[in-house]
Amino acid sequence: MRKSRRIAVFDSGFGGLTVLAELQRTLPTANFYYLGDSARAPYGTKGPETIARYGRECVAFLMRCDPDLIVVACNTVSSIALEELTALSPVPLIGTIEPAIDVALRRSTRGRFGVLGTRATISSGAYQKGIESKRPGAYVHAVPCPLFVPLVEEGLTDCKVTAEAVRMYLQPVVDSGVDTVVLGCTHYPLLLPALSRFFGSDVALIQCSKAIADRVAEMLRIGSEEVSAGEISFFTTDDVERFNLLGSYFLGGVRVSAELVRLDSGHT
Amino acid sequence: MRKSRRIAVFDSGFGGLTVLAELQRTLPTANFYYLGDSARAPYGTKGPETIARYGRECVAFLMRCDPDLIVVACNTVSSIALEELTALSPVPLIGTIEPAIDVALRRSTRGRFGVLGTRATISSGAYQKGIESKRPGAYVHAVPCPLFVPLVEEGLTDCKVTAEAVRMYLQPVVDSGVDTVVLGCTHYPLLLPALSRFFGSDVALIQCSKAIADRVAEMLRIGSEEVSAGEISFFTTDDVERFNLLGSYFLGGVRVSAELVRLDSGHT
Repeated sequence: MRKSRRIAVFDSGFGGLTVLAELQRTLPTANFYYLGDSARAPYGTKGPETIARYGRECVAFLMRCDPDLIVVACNTVSSIALEELTALSPVPLIGTIEPAIDVALRRSTRGRFGVLGTRATISSGAYQKGIESKRPGAYVHAVPCPLFVPLVEEGLTDCKVTAEAVRMYLQPVVDSGVDTVVLGCTHYPLLLPALSRFFGSDVALIQCSKAIADRVAEMLRIGSEEVSAGEISFFTTDDVERFNLLGSYFLGGVRVSAELVRLDSGHT
Repeated sequence: MRKSRRIAVFDSGFGGLTVLAELQRTLPTANFYYLGDSARAPYGTKGPETIARYGRECVAFLMRCDPDLIVVACNTVSSIALEELTALSPVPLIGTIEPAIDVALRRSTRGRFGVLGTRATISSGAYQKGIESKRPGAYVHAVPCPLFVPLVEEGLTDCKVTAEAVRMYLQPVVDSGVDTVVLGCTHYPLLLPALSRFFGSDVALIQCSKAIADRVAEMLRIGSEEVSAGEISFFTTDDVERFNLLGSYFLGGVRVSAELVRLDSGHT
């Protein structure tokens, strides 16, 4: 039996757990190392220099787990610093943007795209440029939705406040006649019920997690010779109890037992 | 002419600027040093250990400005770590909790209090214990309002989303018949129009900033012999441009020009 693959995953906090869940479904024999930098979350409201530094510190920490590859399960870091982190990292890195764009391009019938993300993700223009370079002439309506992350982290995924926030941010997106909307933040899949109801069945809602999982499987060429189930190790920079509680909520009830770590050594 | 007093003020980000504004109105001849730790904001959703460490790092940084005293203009840090920080600090520290409670006790007619704050502030029980120790038998209804900080930081102080959030958190507070409500977070004064409309004129809304400014003036015995206007220095741990923009908004249009600093040296 081959040695189990080691896959490291990080995010500012809990959002990346939606990617981890999909990775584990697709690659049940791999060992996972998940880092949530909850002590400095959210990233999406912060400046590009800060976000890039946090990304470097997360990669540096995860390299200690000796991974075969690292998944940047945070759209904010992916959109600001993927190139820089790829240049620094001794192992391959996979971000969220390109896999999500590829799925969106395949699904779109009329080339009219909405992109929802944090303020930092949308300001970076990463999705807009990525879509336009692969499908010149595409219409892209990109909207920062900064309240969505706190709403999800508070478990307010389907209430009147959420409905009002959805309407405030997304009415102009609907009005512009998009056919495909990219959920450009790993927190947003938890808002799917509210978003689906708002957009209706004519608009395709795109998550990156399945596309990322497929790409990781392909890169690591994980075959059927592995049979033992893999394990997940969790690391957080903030309160362990809250991480375990919210982590379990994001992972649909799975038991989570995280280890407290520090990233801010001041040396990166 | 006496040497100008030096007053250091810190908060997780922008909320403490509501306290700074009041301090400057009361003490126009003092020099101020304001630190907003925006790179790790918000504090109120984080765990007590993390919050205490951030508080220590803020105090350590501000000591370099050689202040006469330090104002902890953050209810979250004040409620979790004021005692610890006071023990560590070579200069006097003033937090938000006690001054706010003293005003609330003077204003209340029937001894029925509401307290609004971050999750960490309310969980600490600092306001509840403080009120009950000074007025035994008082009724205290304390409610965490975690969406209020992101709403304020997004400038959404008076819209439908805010109105829904206010109703969600505060309807039970109104229903419990309080006569006095403490705004236990330095962001909340920016929600005053929405909160006043919701509570109506029979409920007194208490901010800590005036009480803190009066206490600082008393402690420093600032008299009339000082005539020159003081200056304000701003420090932030995140994007300077965003700090200047949001800082100016919080300070009602004053020009803000912050310096970027790092706190996370890993040595505190």
